[in-house]
Amino acid sequence: MKENPFNQTIEFKNKPKIIGNYSVAGPKEGKGHFGKFFHYVMKSDNFGEATYEKAEKKMMEKVLKGAINSAGLKPENINLFLAGDLLNQIISSSYAARSFDIPYLGLFGACSTMAESLALGACIIDGKFFENVACATVSHFSTAERQFRYPLELGNQRPPTSQWTVTASGCSILSLNGSGPVITKATFGKVTDYGITDVNNMGAAMAPSTMSTMIAHFKDTGTKPDDFDLIITGDLGKIGSEILIDLMEDKGFKLGVNYCDCGQMIYKSEQNPLMGGSGCGCSASLINSYFMEKLKKNKVKKILYLATGALLSTTAIQQGETVPGITHAVLIESGK
Amino acid sequence: MKENPFNQTIEFKNKPKIIGNYSVAGPKEGKGHFGKFFHYVMKSDNFGEATYEKAEKKMMEKVLKGAINSAGLKPENINLFLAGDLLNQIISSSYAARSFDIPYLGLFGACSTMAESLALGACIIDGKFFENVACATVSHFSTAERQFRYPLELGNQRPPTSQWTVTASGCSILSLNGSGPVITKATFGKVTDYGITDVNNMGAAMAPSTMSTMIAHFKDTGTKPDDFDLIITGDLGKIGSEILIDLMEDKGFKLGVNYCDCGQMIYKSEQNPLMGGSGCGCSASLINSYFMEKLKKNKVKKILYLATGALLSTTAIQQGETVPGITHAVLIESGK
Repeated sequence: MKENPFNQTIEFKNKPKIIGNYSVAGPKEGKGHFGKFFHYVMKSDNFGEATYEKAEKKMMEKVLKGAINSAGLKPENINLFLAGDLLNQIISSSYAARSFDIPYLGLFGACSTMAESLALGACIIDGKFFENVACATVSHFSTAERQFRYPLELGNQRPPTSQWTVTASGCSILSLNGSGPVITKATFGKVTDYGITDVNNMGAAMAPSTMSTMIAHFKDTGTKPDDFDLIITGDLGKIGSEILIDLMEDKGFKLGVNYCDCGQMIYKSEQNPLMGGSGCGCSASLINSYFMEKLKKNKVKKILYLATGALLSTTAIQQGETVPGITHAVLIESGK
Repeated sequence: MKENPFNQTIEFKNKPKIIGNYSVAGPKEGKGHFGKFFHYVMKSDNFGEATYEKAEKKMMEKVLKGAINSAGLKPENINLFLAGDLLNQIISSSYAARSFDIPYLGLFGACSTMAESLALGACIIDGKFFENVACATVSHFSTAERQFRYPLELGNQRPPTSQWTVTASGCSILSLNGSGPVITKATFGKVTDYGITDVNNMGAAMAPSTMSTMIAHFKDTGTKPDDFDLIITGDLGKIGSEILIDLMEDKGFKLGVNYCDCGQMIYKSEQNPLMGGSGCGCSASLINSYFMEKLKKNKVKKILYLATGALLSTTAIQQGETVPGITHAVLIESGK
C-alpha cells in the first residue's frame, strides 16, 4: 500500500464535547450482556409499527429526541443532524429527519457510520461552524436480512460465519458548551479490500480496513495499543476480531486485554449469535450507553473507537465483486 | 414550519478555493446543450465495461483522477475523498474509492450530493483540518432506471412528468492553496415533504425543499435573488422549476432571468427529455464544467448553487410513503 504523505488523523483543538446521548435496543439485545445499560429496550421488533422499516425509522426518531433531551436541549437548539443507516437510500435516517425541523446531512459508511458522523460532527463543532450537532445511526435485524440476504419468512439457515444484525440505535449530541466526554482526535479510513466474496463473512471483509485505520492512528499520533484504556471495534465479530489481532501482530502491534469488539460482546452465547452482532446500531448503541457512562464516571479515560463497515451491496455481489471494508476511528476521552 | 433560532448558513472565513475540477458525460449528454464543455464525453453508455454499474464506478474514478490532475496534484496529495451517488450502498463511490489510496467518507443526499460534498469539504478545508479534499458525485441513466423504476429491457413507457437520469459525473478539489473560484457560504437544508407520492414527478417532490433552503439562505445572509449573477438549481426539471418559481413568489421572492435549472437545460428539446434531466451527476457535471469556466473567467462573479434531492426508496414507496426532498446550497464566487 502506497503511503499518503499527509496523515489521516485530525486533532480537535477546541475539544468538542459529547453533551448528550441516547440508545435504543431491540428485545433480543435487551436480553444480551448490555440490556440494563440501554436507555430504552423495545418490547417488540416492530416497535408498534406496520413494517420493520417504519420501526427502524421510529428508533432513529427516538434516539434523536432522547439525546437532545439528555443534553438539556430542545430540537430547535440543534443546528445539524448527521446520520445514516444500512437501508437503501438511508431511508431510516432521512424519514426520521423529516420529523424534525433540523438541517440534515445523510451519510453512508455501512457499519462505520457512527464514527463517520462523530468525526464529521466534531469537525463542524471544532471549526465553530455550528453550536450543537446530533450524530446518529440505526440498524434493524429484520430490515437488513430482508434487504441484504433473504426475507425472514423463508426461514433460511444461517452459515456458521454469519453475524446477527443488531436491532439498535445510538445518538450523540456534540457541542463546545456544556460538559461531557471529549472527542479529541479522528482518523479517516481508506477503502480496503482483501478479496472476500462471502457476504456471510463480513468480519473477515472488514478486519483489513480496521488494521489500516488503527495503524494510521498509532503512527499519526505516536501511540501504541497500551496507551488507551480501551480499544473498541464496531462489529468485526468473533472471526473478524481474531483476524484483526493476527493482522496487527504481523505488523508489530500486540492488541491486549484492553481490546474488545462490540459485535462479539453484545449477545450472550446462549442467544446463539454465531459470530456475534453486526450492523451500525451495534457499536452506536454500546458507545452511547455502557461506554459513555464509563467515560462520564471517569472509570475509563481514553477510548479509541473504530467503527467498521463492510461496503456491501447485493447488486455488486451479484456482479462478482468482492466486499471492501472501511473503518473510521474517533478518540473519546473522559476529559477529567 | 417552526423557525430554527440558529441560522442554517455557514460563512467560510478562510475562503476554500476550488483548485481543480473535471466532468464526464454520457453520449446523450454529449449531444446536449453542454456537450462541448464537458472534459470527457463517453462513446458508449457502458464505457467499455460489462455492466452499467461498473461503468458508473469507472466514471467516478475518471473524474477523481481528472480533477486531481487539473489541480496539478497527485492522488497522494488528496487527504480526503467525499462522495456519494444514487445506487444502493453508494457502490459507485465506494468501489471507486477502493482504487485510490485516499481516506474516504461516503455521503448520501440523493441528487443533492454535489452540494453536500462541497459544503462538507469546505468545512474541512476552512477549519484547516486537511490540506486538499476531493468532492464528487455520479449518476447513470441505466443503473438508476434499473434500480428505481424498471429494467430498460422492459421498454416501459415514460410518464410525461418524468425526468431522464443524467449519465454524468463531476469532481472538485478544494484547498486553501492554489487559485480558483471560492466557496464562501453554505446553507444546509431540512427534509421537506409536501406529500408527493408519484416517483415519476420528482421535481414536484423536491421544489418545496429548494424553496426552504433558498429562503433560509436569503434570510441568513440578508440577500435577495437579484444579488446573485446566477441562481442554479440541480435538477428540478421543467415542472419542478415552475413550482419553485411559484412557491418563491408566494413568499415574496421573484426569481428572474438569473435563475436556471440544470435539469431543464442539459438536454436539447429534440432529445425528448420530457421534464428534463435529473440525477446527482446532472448539476455536478455542469457546475464542474460550464459554470466553473464562467467563474474562472470572471464572466460571472457569484453563483448560488442549490443541489436538489428526492429522498426516494422503492421500499419506502411500496410501503405507502411519500417522497421527501432535500436541498443544500453553496455560494461559489469567482474571487476576482
